[in-house]
Amino acid sequence: MNDLKANLRSAQKEVDKTIKSLLPFGKGIEKKLFEAINYSILSSGKRLRPFLVIQSSKLFDVSEKSALRVASSIEMIHSYSLIHDDLPSMDNDDLRRGLLTTHKKYNEATAILAGDSLLTLSFQVLSDTLTHSDPRIRCDLINELAKAAGAYGMVGGQMMDLEAENKKLSIGAITRIQMLKTGALIAYACNSGAIMGRAEKKEKFSLQGYAHDIGLAYQIRDDLLDVTSTEKELGKKVNKDKKAGKKNFVSILGKERAKKQLEFLGNQAIKHLEVFDDKANLLREVARFIVERDR
Amino acid sequence: MNDLKANLRSAQKEVDKTIKSLLPFGKGIEKKLFEAINYSILSSGKRLRPFLVIQSSKLFDVSEKSALRVASSIEMIHSYSLIHDDLPSMDNDDLRRGLLTTHKKYNEATAILAGDSLLTLSFQVLSDTLTHSDPRIRCDLINELAKAAGAYGMVGGQMMDLEAENKKLSIGAITRIQMLKTGALIAYACNSGAIMGRAEKKEKFSLQGYAHDIGLAYQIRDDLLDVTSTEKELGKKVNKDKKAGKKNFVSILGKERAKKQLEFLGNQAIKHLEVFDDKANLLREVARFIVERDR
Repeated sequence: MNDLKANLRSAQKEVDKTIKSLLPFGKGIEKKLFEAINYSILSSGKRLRPFLVIQSSKLFDVSEKSALRVASSIEMIHSYSLIHDDLPSMDNDDLRRGLLTTHKKYNEATAILAGDSLLTLSFQVLSDTLTHSDPRIRCDLINELAKAAGAYGMVGGQMMDLEAENKKLSIGAITRIQMLKTGALIAYACNSGAIMGRAEKKEKFSLQGYAHDIGLAYQIRDDLLDVTSTEKELGKKVNKDKKAGKKNFVSILGKERAKKQLEFLGNQAIKHLEVFDDKANLLREVARFIVERDR
Repeated sequence: MNDLKANLRSAQKEVDKTIKSLLPFGKGIEKKLFEAINYSILSSGKRLRPFLVIQSSKLFDVSEKSALRVASSIEMIHSYSLIHDDLPSMDNDDLRRGLLTTHKKYNEATAILAGDSLLTLSFQVLSDTLTHSDPRIRCDLINELAKAAGAYGMVGGQMMDLEAENKKLSIGAITRIQMLKTGALIAYACNSGAIMGRAEKKEKFSLQGYAHDIGLAYQIRDDLLDVTSTEKELGKKVNKDKKAGKKNFVSILGKERAKKQLEFLGNQAIKHLEVFDDKANLLREVARFIVERDR
């Protein structure tokens, strides 16, 4: 696990350097927009999705430069989604990672436009010849990211989540919502290395299985932390789902069964990686980390 | 002009058919999202940008299918920008083309997500092999659109426009804001045909000059209509800039000088098309239409 933490930290450094080099800047009357973009995406975060891009790229010997640019693109999408989800008309959150959310730090209009900018920039970066020399692969990366992030993916999941308030949902329905809301982008992160590395079908399937399991595990762990942690420990509000009248994995399964399901998914995720050799060791560590993380 | 109107109408039909075939649909708990997307983009509009894509494509014998898909993508971006700009935290508009704006018809969260979906879908469509057989051209289309729509383009222009309230701006500053806020996407529409048709530099420059002039002319006409029309005629609020304490072309130049500048730009736009033969006749008509339009 120490190995993973050191690797996460060094990847975070590299990713942040790449992101910084890609962000817009300027001193015109619109400079608040650039500041808000910088503030939102560079105010830390685990950089889990970028790490998955980098590690899945390593499985197929994809160049580090390509991996870092795709990793940055995915973090832009993740960051935009957090900015918009935090807005008053959505989840109405004032804190994120212990800091003011973007609309609280600036204002709503600036936050909406900062999100729009990051979403747009993400596709600009992917389409650039610097990201990958093969334009077919660049188009594949863009097409798959758009599917994962759009109305049939992440945004659709957020809409479902908003509509889920005060509705009695089955465990199947909640699984579907979470697979779209958070799972789709995690799956894309794992898939991006396979796209760039022109992986074989068998390898792609294995990574898909892995991504599915860690995606769900991530959410179950989130739901557990929501009821067992404090606002100070998490850097954001706790007991949110209960207050919003939302069902989640823990409220339906109970803490004990949710924990068991979490461990089962973690082990199953690692099993999916059997087709890969030691190169996948850090991805195995990620699965363990997701099961055990305390924030 | 009758020729233009008939051509605009038939292009609108074709574009709307293509857009409909590309929009997400479904009956799940998130169905309000799909409804809002449909409502926003299909509630009419002049389809000026799509028409520019189609006509610039005709100059270089680009296939109709490619032109229609790019035309649809650009209308998705335009539509998303209107949805977000209309929000209470931005321009706070209740009416658009005589209909309720998306957040008034649904709610703010749904409007934000509908805009996010359309923005994302636009890049998904462009990256698809059905749009153009050459992946290099698809990447160019995506890269240029992202630049035109992002923080250094349309979104940056919107941020400038919001910041411009109660500021004393020069005519140069206002020109810059409008060139980004509305001009960048119009320029992209004209440029997209040249990208797909692998136009020569000279032809690209001519189209850029044309796009620059009609983009500015369009905004001056908008500013004139804002002070000379009624809410009923325009289908949206009038005298908006004055109420918001915003300077525009008319408030700085006065009505008469603004009208002269408008006509000058229209004529200059047509001059830029001299390198093209009769194939550019409808683009010439568009320039005249923009100068004379009454809504």
